[in-house]
Amino acid sequence: MIKTDILIIGAGPTGLFTVFEAGLLKLKCHLIDALPQAGGQCSEIYPKKPIYDIPGFPEVLAGDLVENLMKQIEPFQPGFTLGERADTIEKLEDGSFIVTTEKGTKHHAPIVAIAGGLGSFEPRKPPIPNLLDFEDKGVEYIIRDPELYRNKNVIISGGGDSALDWSIFLTDVAKSVTLIHRRNEFRGALDSVEKVQELKNIGKIELITPAEVIGLVGNNGLEEVVIKQGAAIFNRECDHFIPLFGLSPKLGPIADWGLEIEKNAIKVDNTLDYQTNIPGIYAIGDVNTYPGKLKLILCGFHEATLMCQSAYQRIFPDKRYVMKYTTVGGVEGFDGSKKEAPKAVIKSID
Amino acid sequence: MIKTDILIIGAGPTGLFTVFEAGLLKLKCHLIDALPQAGGQCSEIYPKKPIYDIPGFPEVLAGDLVENLMKQIEPFQPGFTLGERADTIEKLEDGSFIVTTEKGTKHHAPIVAIAGGLGSFEPRKPPIPNLLDFEDKGVEYIIRDPELYRNKNVIISGGGDSALDWSIFLTDVAKSVTLIHRRNEFRGALDSVEKVQELKNIGKIELITPAEVIGLVGNNGLEEVVIKQGAAIFNRECDHFIPLFGLSPKLGPIADWGLEIEKNAIKVDNTLDYQTNIPGIYAIGDVNTYPGKLKLILCGFHEATLMCQSAYQRIFPDKRYVMKYTTVGGVEGFDGSKKEAPKAVIKSID
Repeated sequence: MIKTDILIIGAGPTGLFTVFEAGLLKLKCHLIDALPQAGGQCSEIYPKKPIYDIPGFPEVLAGDLVENLMKQIEPFQPGFTLGERADTIEKLEDGSFIVTTEKGTKHHAPIVAIAGGLGSFEPRKPPIPNLLDFEDKGVEYIIRDPELYRNKNVIISGGGDSALDWSIFLTDVAKSVTLIHRRNEFRGALDSVEKVQELKNIGKIELITPAEVIGLVGNNGLEEVVIKQGAAIFNRECDHFIPLFGLSPKLGPIADWGLEIEKNAIKVDNTLDYQTNIPGIYAIGDVNTYPGKLKLILCGFHEATLMCQSAYQRIFPDKRYVMKYTTVGGVEGFDGSKKEAPKAVIKSID
Repeated sequence: MIKTDILIIGAGPTGLFTVFEAGLLKLKCHLIDALPQAGGQCSEIYPKKPIYDIPGFPEVLAGDLVENLMKQIEPFQPGFTLGERADTIEKLEDGSFIVTTEKGTKHHAPIVAIAGGLGSFEPRKPPIPNLLDFEDKGVEYIIRDPELYRNKNVIISGGGDSALDWSIFLTDVAKSVTLIHRRNEFRGALDSVEKVQELKNIGKIELITPAEVIGLVGNNGLEEVVIKQGAAIFNRECDHFIPLFGLSPKLGPIADWGLEIEKNAIKVDNTLDYQTNIPGIYAIGDVNTYPGKLKLILCGFHEATLMCQSAYQRIFPDKRYVMKYTTVGGVEGFDGSKKEAPKAVIKSID
């Protein structure tokens, strides 16, 4: 059982910054995310795209923003349960919660902060009749660990950035990389399209277009895919088939936690602390809704900050926290680190 | 008469970021600030001090944050009335406002956003009987333009960072610099104290301690100051006397604008848009108060953002603004500039 003060569901920018604000209040955090890495959409969907409306950054790549946030929260040593989706919640008699992931990992905390963004990202799956039989037996929709593909024959399907970029990346890892797309045209960054063209020209990527995978073959694991190209239908041996047809966000199991939901978002009390209808459960960032809500990262930062104050009062009803500016009080990490402004000296001049 | 869409009172971080969010909505902004430069406290009080709780910056100097914000808002060409304090407000029949500074500069806008921080910074004045007679006739409390002191004899009084840093700076500009302090000990950055010691040693700064200025002499302008050092009292010729005893924030004339005030802050409606009790006047950042308010820069950013949406609806009651992410829609400046994420290409691979 993982124990923490604030259990954060969703490791996107809002969830990550919560660790910092909680840390200033000496509260420990643990984050759960269905994706295999921290950063939410910023890391998974558009790490190389610039964001222009983060205050103080005329321009910042989404991936760099996540990296900065990870550095900012490092002193507060957050825990992570990654690649697992929060599945069920149970409220104990003392008001605390146990959250269990789909894989059975249990987390216990007095406070739950849902920073789930647009929901957990579920892969769009191609309509192949026996697809589900091969999930985790040769079929993966998200690449969690590229090492899984070392010296394997890999077939990737899709025509966007993910399909292009992973095809490029895996040429250095896999035994063979085949890219199948139902059109001749790919849609992605110019660089990526050109790089795939180049790798195709030198025989590092095999391209089969316009074509699609219509069946899977294998006993106890994937052995071959069935490919339809025009009128021709043929089989191709492979160890892994990775359909990369995009991710689509779904609120998922959280929708069944008894929280008030409106337009696919969780209703919160914006007059005070972004708490949901269940005391002790907060919702912050894109996942929540209230009058005037804007789904912007900078709003999530504010909501996280106010939420942490409320969580502190809930955990320590008798203490009164007096806010200290970081410029004045510095930042003391749980790891013993201390950052602070250079102190003024008092010194005579003769 | 200066005309704009949103008149922002206070050019600190919150006021500056308002320009950006308004700009995304195609609204023009003009800022008024009593200080001679933008940035508020960050520029005037602690430009060289690190802030640790701006999201995405593990550490940023206050002055650098302001510089970044200025760069971020540049495409939206804000106007500035600096070195003038907003004094009176008049509501016209059409619901718009005229704000006049103490120097008589008039501004007209349908929306007023008060981002006044802790108030306008008023200098602490030394108890010299005829001090007021010499204001702007040789006595200044804030250095607005160092060129005023070129080849002049300058006497600075004070024992903190401002007194130290301006004494150092003016040695390159003024004919002579004399620093007077009532103690031998100075309180400031080690660097600054050591630099003053060094400049004193080579005769570029004259130090008179422990001593204080107790009187001013001159016809139609400052000619001499009267200095008391221990039992001795003597006069010293000078063109300018600059007492630097710190700035203390005062809500000032805004307190008389008919706004609901609570604990020296302006009450706003945090359930929607941070509007005050006077429709069309908003208060954002440290100057406002509501249940759970935290006086943090990051909260001001959020408040500014929601406020701009409300202002837009007030100016264009019939239009419905559909928010576009900057990562998707880019940023189009009023100066014709355009920043946007590199577009995906659709390209065939043969």
